[in-house]
Amino acid sequence: MATITGPIDVSALRARLDRASTAAEQAGVDALLISPGSDLRYLIGAGGDSFERLTCLALPVGGTPTLVVPKLEQPGYAGIPTDELGVEVVTWVDGEDPYALVKAAIKGDRTAVADMMPALHTIKLGNAIGGQQSLAGPIIRELRMRKDASEIDALRKAGQAIDRVHARMGEFLRVGRTEREVAKDIAAAIVEEGHTHADFVIVGSGPNGASPHHRDSDRVVEAGDVVVIDIGGPVAEGYNSDSTRVYVMGEPKHDDVWDTYAVLQAAQKAAVEAVQPGVTCEQIDAVARTVIADAGFGEFFVHRTGHGIGLDVHEEPYIVSGNALPLEAGMAFSVEPGIYLPGRWGARIEDIVVATENGVESFNNRPHELVVL
Amino acid sequence: MATITGPIDVSALRARLDRASTAAEQAGVDALLISPGSDLRYLIGAGGDSFERLTCLALPVGGTPTLVVPKLEQPGYAGIPTDELGVEVVTWVDGEDPYALVKAAIKGDRTAVADMMPALHTIKLGNAIGGQQSLAGPIIRELRMRKDASEIDALRKAGQAIDRVHARMGEFLRVGRTEREVAKDIAAAIVEEGHTHADFVIVGSGPNGASPHHRDSDRVVEAGDVVVIDIGGPVAEGYNSDSTRVYVMGEPKHDDVWDTYAVLQAAQKAAVEAVQPGVTCEQIDAVARTVIADAGFGEFFVHRTGHGIGLDVHEEPYIVSGNALPLEAGMAFSVEPGIYLPGRWGARIEDIVVATENGVESFNNRPHELVVL
Repeated sequence: MATITGPIDVSALRARLDRASTAAEQAGVDALLISPGSDLRYLIGAGGDSFERLTCLALPVGGTPTLVVPKLEQPGYAGIPTDELGVEVVTWVDGEDPYALVKAAIKGDRTAVADMMPALHTIKLGNAIGGQQSLAGPIIRELRMRKDASEIDALRKAGQAIDRVHARMGEFLRVGRTEREVAKDIAAAIVEEGHTHADFVIVGSGPNGASPHHRDSDRVVEAGDVVVIDIGGPVAEGYNSDSTRVYVMGEPKHDDVWDTYAVLQAAQKAAVEAVQPGVTCEQIDAVARTVIADAGFGEFFVHRTGHGIGLDVHEEPYIVSGNALPLEAGMAFSVEPGIYLPGRWGARIEDIVVATENGVESFNNRPHELVVL
Repeated sequence: MATITGPIDVSALRARLDRASTAAEQAGVDALLISPGSDLRYLIGAGGDSFERLTCLALPVGGTPTLVVPKLEQPGYAGIPTDELGVEVVTWVDGEDPYALVKAAIKGDRTAVADMMPALHTIKLGNAIGGQQSLAGPIIRELRMRKDASEIDALRKAGQAIDRVHARMGEFLRVGRTEREVAKDIAAAIVEEGHTHADFVIVGSGPNGASPHHRDSDRVVEAGDVVVIDIGGPVAEGYNSDSTRVYVMGEPKHDDVWDTYAVLQAAQKAAVEAVQPGVTCEQIDAVARTVIADAGFGEFFVHRTGHGIGLDVHEEPYIVSGNALPLEAGMAFSVEPGIYLPGRWGARIEDIVVATENGVESFNNRPHELVVL
C-alpha cells in the first residue's frame, strides 16, 4: 500500500508536479504516466506498491493530474492532500478497464511511462492509448537528481544513522559467527539507529568479499578474514543510506591486504576530493579507476564508481564511464570503488556525497582505514 | 541477487524451458524475454533482483536459451547448473550495450516480455529489436498456473506453516498493544514456523479492518475490536502462504458482528465447496458474491474473491467476474471474500485451495469461526 511515513510538504509537492509538467512539455510528450514507486512518492508523497492492479498518476501537460487507483487501495492514499495538490482521484474496481480511465485523463498520445512500470501495464497502456511511448525516467531524473535542501537534510540524517551502525560493528562482527548471524544483528541495528527498515545488508567475508554483490551466507567468519560490510536503508522521509566499510579479523591471512587496501583507499579519497560542480560523472569514475589501474589492479575493479541516491538506493546520476553529465550542486551519489581478488578477498569503500556550491560534502564520516576487529 | 534457497530440480527446469519454448511458438512469438522475478525463478531456479542493469533470459523458439547478466551479478547464479540446463551465459560490464546482446541471442523480432519487466528495459529492448512486443505473462501463466506435484507439496507446506502462526495468535494479539507491535511479533513467528521471511502482515483492528489492504498502524487494539489478520510469506522452495482469519477481543463492541460474520463464513465455505475441475473462476467468485449480496452486503464486498498463488503471492488464475477460465486439477488460489463496513469494522476469511481431480483440497485448515481472544 501507499506507505506514507515521512511528512507531506504540500508546497514542495505542488512545485514538483508543476516542474514535471513543464519538463514533460519541453521533452515533447503529452503526458507522464507514473506507476507506484519512488517517482510517484516524489510527486505526490506516497509511493504505493500495487502490481497487477493498475495504479497510475497521469500528468497531462496543461491538464489536471489524475490518480487512477483501485478502489480497495484508495484508503492507502488517505494521507495525501489531493485537493490541495490539485490531483483528481479516479477509482476503479475489478472488472473495469483502468487503461481506458488513464486514456480519458490525458490529451494526445505521446506518453512517457515511469521506468519502473511493469511491462504488464506499459504494453496495455500502449495498446489503449496508441501513439509513441517513451521513458519518463530521463524527464523525472532531471528533477530528482537535483536535491533540494529538505532532501539533503534527509540524506544527511540517513548517512549519520548508518555511520552509527558502522561504529557499532564490533558488537556484531566476530570470529566464529556466520555471515547470516552477523547480518541479522546489523539489520536490527539499522532500525535501532533510525531507519524504517534495513534495505540491504552485505556481509562478505574472506573469498565472499570478492563477489561485489554477495549478500550473506552460512560461512563462518574466520581469524584473518577481510570482511566487506555494505549496508543501508531508508529513514522516515524515504531517503536512503548506503555505506561500505571493510574490517579485518585480527591480522589479515593474506600478505597483500595492507598494500592493496591502501591503493583502494587512495582511489576512493581522490574520487571524493574531485567532486565539484562542473566535473563530469565519468571524470569522477576515471579518477578512482586511474589510481587503481596505475597500481596494477584495473582488471579487479569490475563495476562503476557510484550511483545517485535519494528515494531510490540506485538512481541518477550514475558515476560511470560514458556519462558526460556535469555535476551540479545538489547532486548526491555514492563513491565506492572496489578491488576484488577472486577466490581470495575483496574490498570496497563507499561514502554518499553531495556536490555543493564549492565542492563536496560527505554524508558518511566513519574512518576509511581498514578496521581491525 | 539471484537468491537460491530451494532445491534445484534440473529435470523439472529443463521440462519447463522446453514447455515455455513450445508455448511461445504456439503463441506466434519468436522469443520470450524474461527479466528477474518469479518467471525467471520458475524457469532456471534463480529469480535475481537487479533493476537498472539488464538481466534477461532470452528464450528463442528453436534456439539456445541465453542468460544475459551483468558480470558483477554472475556469482549470484553460481548455484544454477546452466550447462545441464542448456543455458548459455553471456555477461556484460558497465559501458556495454546489453540490449544488443539480447538481440544477438534471438532470431526474429516478435518478442514477448515478462509482465514484471520494468519499462526501462521493455522500451529499450523494443527499440533495439524492433518488431512487435507482447506480454509473456499469458504464455508463462499457462505453465505456472498448473502446479505439478512438487509445487503442490511446497504450497501445502507453506499452508501448514501459516496455520501454525494463526494457532499462536493469542500470544501476539492482545488488548492494549498497537497493531504494529502485534505485526512485529507475527512477522517473527512467520519465520519461526518455517518461512524464509514474512512477506506481508496485515493487522486491521476495529475500523482499520474495513480497509481491505490496510497493513498496520499505531492504533491500540481495544476490547471489543474485530481484528483482521492476513499473513503470509514464502517457504524455502519459494512458494507462498496467504491466510486470513478474524479475531475479536472479547465480546464485540458492535451488535451486527455475529450475524454479519456468519454471512461471510457461509459465503467463503460455499465458494470453497464449489471448487472442482470444469467450474470457471468467475463462477467461484459468483458463489461467494451471491451469498453476500443476498444477505444485503453486496456493496461491502469490494474486491474479487481470490487470486492464484505460487512463486508469486498474486498470480493466475484470478477468481474474478469476467474470468471464464475453467478450473483444472493443479490450479491453486485463494478464496477470500470480505465484508467491509467503512468506519466501523471489517472481516475477511481466506484459505489457499487447490483444485484436485475430484474436487478441492484446502492448504489452510484452521477453524473458520470468529475467534474470541
